[in-house]
Amino acid sequence: MTPTGLAVIGAGYWGPNLVRNAMATPELRLEWLCDLDQERARAVLGRYTTVRPTASVEQVLADPAVQAVAIATPARTHFDLVRAALDAGKHVLVEKPLTPTYAEGAKLVALAEERGRVLMLDHTFCYTPVVGRIRELIASGELGDVQFVDSVRINLGLVQPDVDVLWDLAPHDLSILDFVLPAGVTPVAVAAHSSDPIGAGRPCLAYLTLWLSTGAIAHVHVNWLSPTKIRTTVIGGSRRTIVWDDVNPAQRLAVYDRGVDLSAAGEDERRAALISYRTGDVVVPALPEREALRGVMAEFAAAIREGRAPLTDGRSGLRVLALLEAAGRSIQNDGIRIELGGSLR
Amino acid sequence: MTPTGLAVIGAGYWGPNLVRNAMATPELRLEWLCDLDQERARAVLGRYTTVRPTASVEQVLADPAVQAVAIATPARTHFDLVRAALDAGKHVLVEKPLTPTYAEGAKLVALAEERGRVLMLDHTFCYTPVVGRIRELIASGELGDVQFVDSVRINLGLVQPDVDVLWDLAPHDLSILDFVLPAGVTPVAVAAHSSDPIGAGRPCLAYLTLWLSTGAIAHVHVNWLSPTKIRTTVIGGSRRTIVWDDVNPAQRLAVYDRGVDLSAAGEDERRAALISYRTGDVVVPALPEREALRGVMAEFAAAIREGRAPLTDGRSGLRVLALLEAAGRSIQNDGIRIELGGSLR
Amino acid sequence: MTPTGLAVIGAGYWGPNLVRNAMATPELRLEWLCDLDQERARAVLGRYTTVRPTASVEQVLADPAVQAVAIATPARTHFDLVRAALDAGKHVLVEKPLTPTYAEGAKLVALAEERGRVLMLDHTFCYTPVVGRIRELIASGELGDVQFVDSVRINLGLVQPDVDVLWDLAPHDLSILDFVLPAGVTPVAVAAHSSDPIGAGRPCLAYLTLWLSTGAIAHVHVNWLSPTKIRTTVIGGSRRTIVWDDVNPAQRLAVYDRGVDLSAAGEDERRAALISYRTGDVVVPALPEREALRGVMAEFAAAIREGRAPLTDGRSGLRVLALLEAAGRSIQNDGIRIELGGSLR
Amino acid sequence: MTPTGLAVIGAGYWGPNLVRNAMATPELRLEWLCDLDQERARAVLGRYTTVRPTASVEQVLADPAVQAVAIATPARTHFDLVRAALDAGKHVLVEKPLTPTYAEGAKLVALAEERGRVLMLDHTFCYTPVVGRIRELIASGELGDVQFVDSVRINLGLVQPDVDVLWDLAPHDLSILDFVLPAGVTPVAVAAHSSDPIGAGRPCLAYLTLWLSTGAIAHVHVNWLSPTKIRTTVIGGSRRTIVWDDVNPAQRLAVYDRGVDLSAAGEDERRAALISYRTGDVVVPALPEREALRGVMAEFAAAIREGRAPLTDGRSGLRVLALLEAAGRSIQNDGIRIELGGSLR
Repeated sequence: MTPTGLAVIGAGYWGPNLVRNAMATPELRLEWLCDLDQERARAVLGRYTTVRPTASVEQVLADPAVQAVAIATPARTHFDLVRAALDAGKHVLVEKPLTPTYAEGAKLVALAEERGRVLMLDHTFCYTPVVGRIRELIASGELGDVQFVDSVRINLGLVQPDVDVLWDLAPHDLSILDFVLPAGVTPVAVAAHSSDPIGAGRPCLAYLTLWLSTGAIAHVHVNWLSPTKIRTTVIGGSRRTIVWDDVNPAQRLAVYDRGVDLSAAGEDERRAALISYRTGDVVVPALPEREALRGVMAEFAAAIREGRAPLTDGRSGLRVLALLEAAGRSIQNDGIRIELGGSLR
Repeated sequence: MTPTGLAVIGAGYWGPNLVRNAMATPELRLEWLCDLDQERARAVLGRYTTVRPTASVEQVLADPAVQAVAIATPARTHFDLVRAALDAGKHVLVEKPLTPTYAEGAKLVALAEERGRVLMLDHTFCYTPVVGRIRELIASGELGDVQFVDSVRINLGLVQPDVDVLWDLAPHDLSILDFVLPAGVTPVAVAAHSSDPIGAGRPCLAYLTLWLSTGAIAHVHVNWLSPTKIRTTVIGGSRRTIVWDDVNPAQRLAVYDRGVDLSAAGEDERRAALISYRTGDVVVPALPEREALRGVMAEFAAAIREGRAPLTDGRSGLRVLALLEAAGRSIQNDGIRIELGGSLR
Repeated sequence: MTPTGLAVIGAGYWGPNLVRNAMATPELRLEWLCDLDQERARAVLGRYTTVRPTASVEQVLADPAVQAVAIATPARTHFDLVRAALDAGKHVLVEKPLTPTYAEGAKLVALAEERGRVLMLDHTFCYTPVVGRIRELIASGELGDVQFVDSVRINLGLVQPDVDVLWDLAPHDLSILDFVLPAGVTPVAVAAHSSDPIGAGRPCLAYLTLWLSTGAIAHVHVNWLSPTKIRTTVIGGSRRTIVWDDVNPAQRLAVYDRGVDLSAAGEDERRAALISYRTGDVVVPALPEREALRGVMAEFAAAIREGRAPLTDGRSGLRVLALLEAAGRSIQNDGIRIELGGSLR
Repeated sequence: MTPTGLAVIGAGYWGPNLVRNAMATPELRLEWLCDLDQERARAVLGRYTTVRPTASVEQVLADPAVQAVAIATPARTHFDLVRAALDAGKHVLVEKPLTPTYAEGAKLVALAEERGRVLMLDHTFCYTPVVGRIRELIASGELGDVQFVDSVRINLGLVQPDVDVLWDLAPHDLSILDFVLPAGVTPVAVAAHSSDPIGAGRPCLAYLTLWLSTGAIAHVHVNWLSPTKIRTTVIGGSRRTIVWDDVNPAQRLAVYDRGVDLSAAGEDERRAALISYRTGDVVVPALPEREALRGVMAEFAAAIREGRAPLTDGRSGLRVLALLEAAGRSIQNDGIRIELGGSLR
């Protein structure tokens, strides 16, 4: 079986990772690395490569050996690049966020479906062993009902020139949430607050509250100004609660048999007496250590080959955009609750 | 100098700590431990004590050997007890929250002033070495301007019968904030979201956003359902940022010379180029280990003796009540921003 | 049932803990706190006590209301005090080490047996929930064979005036080892190295190697000069390995299903191929938080009442002394291996 | 300036790291990757490379474009390979340990000097920012006199087919020690204990004690069977103490102003009174994150170009071998202390 010919577009922060993982994926054959700054592309490829650098997207898209492109350019360029690639008949893997607006994203999703091409979001975290396990724990019912989600993603981050902290970091949390929530549980409203205490011209820290269709709250804290790096997600369930601490490789995931139980039969005045506390064992599941981008590449290649939607398809990117846009509207309106129209899943 | 005669009222969860620390404070002389359940009072005092248990508040308040009372009963009883004590001419130390409403609290503050008696809040954390050091770091300018505050106080907590998680836990964060913010910086608005995912009949987790008069945001996360105990406060400053991790005694406080700086002169289009990152050393200051309640007792005794307001006086308790009430109103109104009328400090 | 009358002798570093826990134990009735410095005893008891301070051991031992004594004085005074107490017909709980020499300790053990009195060592750690669980895990076979033990007990400690670091800290590790090793597994030889890099006149850090009767090694590192406090014991088993981190209350004990397995049938040249690695889950057992000294007091009272040897009897203290003396001989002889004569259990 | 032509020999565990870092070093030009298993070499290089794989060392050594080789093969092959490379006039970078015996290593060092070629040990850790900083802290006197060293390097490691745990892991600790100890301070004696509790046919855990010329002790614990990964080195100084925790990237190095001081003037009987304790701040120095092997490659290239000995030259490898051999003799003789003849530095 011949591998799928691939070009990577964008040799900036993330592009080299795409290059490295594409090169390690047998089902892909990397043909080009494209960047407006051809010297940068050349430098990323190094002195020992047979992959060709180019500054011309047109050249890449015109190459019949290229069946697919992976796009790691600034978000504002995604719409034109993805459209051009789809128009040229290429399958597309694109960095998050899909586009700067929901409307643009929706056009791309429609175009991909019309063209019969794969449009996949690089929601990298969804391909980590830990998120895969979390999804299983929820889907299998081991966690019980999802009662709350709290996600913190803060560190001394690069203040991005074209996106605020919400669009930079929250797509991770929102795409993970989209990936692990059980079928039928969807966000129904959003509120957000943000701040730009250093005068950067855009929010550098933000808090996002999501109301789920079950009544549960999911909360996201993103911050570029924290001196310490924290990436912790707690998902409280009626049977178990999980703590995912991504900066602790020795114990990335812990499943707690701890919580508060309430007997269903209680009348109001006797309620306190019916509360009980579980303080059972904690289990730290063994998880393989493997690079998530390897999984992204394999899924992209498999979706192309099998002519199916990838796990993180364009629609998952759209759902993230809907949440980000609603959060932006909330911020512009003093943090009011914004209802999300229609089903998001 | 004869010690001040003291009675502790309430032998429940916190009362024994007041008893133990009062007994260890030379400036105080513990006369009574009062609880409606006299057996409980007796059990707290143990078999070897000369302190008298009683079930009668009247007996305590009628005792001329008692000049002061420390009240550790449920919040709903505070108003009547504090008023009776002040009416009986006693100085009062009371657990947080001062009262269940701002209006009641304001009456007690007025009454104490009228009677010329000390009314002190047991804002215990304000008397820890770590909070004292944080206050100094801010007051001395070493932190620079406060750019953001993020406080997390979560663990598997007791679901309280008469207060929600906000009134149970957030008074700690709010009183600490009140204590460490520099003169002239005050909260001006509040928004809050909460959830009761276990059907306890009251919020079990809540998120609180405070806008400060400088434009900075302070955020508080309180949660009774978390399987892990986290008590972390980050205070970002323009010169330094501190991380206070209260469950890490080996490194409770760390001062980071890390952050994002922005040159003032930048025009919009050149802004990105003017951002710079400090990644300097971290200093973990040596702090004494001493029990905060010892400091509370010493301050209470000193304020009585010197006829002055204590560090955490009734007004500090009122400021906390104003924030809690505003948070409650926000929760009842879908999280809208509630402006705080008038100066809170 | 009337409680057993108790006197605590020694109001220094550890005595107050004995006092506090004795007072909280219903089966005991604390009569006296005895210290040569009566003011210190008075200060420890505080202003509100009905317990009597005294400077006279004779007075205590002559008191028929006293059936038992708990001794927390410097090690060099233990022999005379324990002997006098046993001669006066009292049961004795004594701090570790039992005596400064094995010979003295053996006399006390013989005397206690002759007198029919309880002689118990305050090997406090053996009464912690964590050590109890470790003992169970080993006894039940869940760990499999004990393959190695590594114990580190270091911090910035008080340089003791009359004992070196080995006699100060290693009794903890050695008594725990004595307590948890399965029946029939005993130390058979010892080697030790030590150093006094600050010129304190006695070893301030030491390394102790014990060979067990199974061929396994147990190693102990004690150090008064470490700036950080580490108290970690790893017990490697053929089926599971446990890590006990005593300064991490959130995860004091972890049971790892990780290890290296070797198929028994391998010939030498094929050995490498027969090695396999287990990398299973980690379980953090739920353990109660309770003060170990409470358990010590309860066991002391129960042993007296039931006329039986306590869990940590005089012989357990003797076994620790034999190891300490052998370690001392090894240090004086350049670290040579010292065989332990006769069975130690 | 033309880069130095390099061949990497050995495409096993470590070889790919040498390949990757050589390719990223401008002063080097990677010509060959050589492995007896040419398919493995091909797989390491990947599908996009211009570097040539080969199974023939002879071909590599005969190539005039190759001026230098980096050898990452099993230790037992080092002697023949290094000798052949030096005989062919190549400069050599070799993995630790240099050779399985001191005698062989000494011959290679002599041969390299005779041939005027660079012989460098890949003591990787010496090129990390953290070890560089430790060396500076000691050399500058900031730590004061080195009072003790304690190094723990344990994890669930691969049981090596041809070396025991001491030869596998301790070279790291010993080469670091060799690198950071101040001029004139050398090991003078060694004792070691080891154990093979799983029947692997070679020691799987070992403890190594080194006496330094100052009287201080350095201790090393290496273990292949630990379920947790610990890589911690404590270096106690008379003025500061450092703790290097290599598995904690957020705080790899901490400098403690804590310790025990002893006034010099004390007579014996008053000694206790003259002990004082420093409990000052802790400083966590900002350190760059860069891959150590990049530094190894740069140093190798620079030493070749400048015709000088590299920082970790053949003699540093010899000093490590002397310690390993002495440790082995100690193990074979029940752990007796082995004096090291002659100066090791």
